[in-house]
Amino acid sequence: MTVDVYRLHAQVTAWLQASRIHVQDAMRQPLDVATKSNRNDLVTNVDQQNQIFLAEQIQTAYPNAHIEGEEGTADKINRLDGLVFFVDPIDGTMNFVKQRAHFAIMIGVYEDGQPVYGAIMDVMQNAIVAGGPELPARVNDVLLPALPDLALADGLIGVNGPMHAHNRLHIADIALASSGARMSGSAGMEFMEIAQNRQLGYISFLKPWDVAAGMAIVSGQGVVVTRPDGGPIDLLNAGLVVAATPKAHQEILTWMQTN
Amino acid sequence: MTVDVYRLHAQVTAWLQASRIHVQDAMRQPLDVATKSNRNDLVTNVDQQNQIFLAEQIQTAYPNAHIEGEEGTADKINRLDGLVFFVDPIDGTMNFVKQRAHFAIMIGVYEDGQPVYGAIMDVMQNAIVAGGPELPARVNDVLLPALPDLALADGLIGVNGPMHAHNRLHIADIALASSGARMSGSAGMEFMEIAQNRQLGYISFLKPWDVAAGMAIVSGQGVVVTRPDGGPIDLLNAGLVVAATPKAHQEILTWMQTN
Repeated sequence: MTVDVYRLHAQVTAWLQASRIHVQDAMRQPLDVATKSNRNDLVTNVDQQNQIFLAEQIQTAYPNAHIEGEEGTADKINRLDGLVFFVDPIDGTMNFVKQRAHFAIMIGVYEDGQPVYGAIMDVMQNAIVAGGPELPARVNDVLLPALPDLALADGLIGVNGPMHAHNRLHIADIALASSGARMSGSAGMEFMEIAQNRQLGYISFLKPWDVAAGMAIVSGQGVVVTRPDGGPIDLLNAGLVVAATPKAHQEILTWMQTN
Repeated sequence: MTVDVYRLHAQVTAWLQASRIHVQDAMRQPLDVATKSNRNDLVTNVDQQNQIFLAEQIQTAYPNAHIEGEEGTADKINRLDGLVFFVDPIDGTMNFVKQRAHFAIMIGVYEDGQPVYGAIMDVMQNAIVAGGPELPARVNDVLLPALPDLALADGLIGVNGPMHAHNRLHIADIALASSGARMSGSAGMEFMEIAQNRQLGYISFLKPWDVAAGMAIVSGQGVVVTRPDGGPIDLLNAGLVVAATPKAHQEILTWMQTN
């Protein structure tokens, strides 16, 4: 790894704190909300402004890095070599618009396709969960305890609403076999819960910038993150993501491979 | 109404603040967890201790009141005349046990079956939402703005996990027709979201102490709270609860009456 991860963590923390002030300032004005792929896929002026701000910070500090972001001001990457920053300037845009709460800013950093670092900020709670393979997971720089390897019956699981409604890949059955399903509307919130031992896992359909930060953090804590067939997450494409403690992950994959 | 609701609010606020200290002290010790009706219906020593504490406060301040509480130290009421306090000492016990977050303490007060007052405390956030027909809804005594009468498509809705998994009463269909489903695992958290205009409603199967406080608060804000057939909530029995803005409530009842 060519990156100094502690220096990177200090930089990203400062960027997120500045982003938070910009976002909260912008929330005092009326939002400009548009739909993307469907009526529940939203983007706002705040998403776009924050993407530009974060891209500028990354380009200044890491001029050779590529940037893959939700709101299009970034490069459209088609290869993962070198240093890549995955940016989600507002994760949980529906919550941002409808609740003014429960949304995140996420930055995931990978080098040659391998995780280096992830950071997720819960903006309204002013909390940052960060970590990676060489940076122990932490919340606001308080180290998090090791995660227990919970079986599916022994913990809560975050699920995607429409997939749960349609029992796609047995997700409703899997949720019923757990201690309970939870749905927050933000991938970032879900990975924060996993990192803090409040959920044993999360199952959803995610874009690269939805999963990159969380995967870098929780895989460093021993959580297994794969596609439903057990294959690795491809950070060039959207797809289904199963993140769970090793025991529960195996149970979930067995469910998903059942007809 | 024979109760001074502002005096009652001051008393309940003080009791909840004292409860919060006791609960957080108890969380530093190992929990004693037992199951009730099924493996996901939990009770802990903390639920029981807090029920005793709150019942003592209520009995001292309102010696003629009846108390209906989740954890059995209270009266088992079979009539609603006079003053009745509904107490949930820990709402969201699964979250309390598994997450150490996202749980509530709730007190709902009714006189001759009519709502007088409700208060819900998010213990870890140290936030109290309170209100009633003669006490404007507030969070930590900051008044909440009037709620817009959102249609189902224009807001998020809290749902019960197993009912959503089984599409019972079209709940999964209703969630898909909304802006999105949310599942928190705590009725108290759901009613706090409604009161703060973060969700347009909540559908679940609830015991009297799960619904009493929330119904007193949000019905004072214009939210409609009924059974699926449109009939009133019976606070002597558990049952299905549909709480939603008037427009969305009508849409939900139409869905539920479809075969």
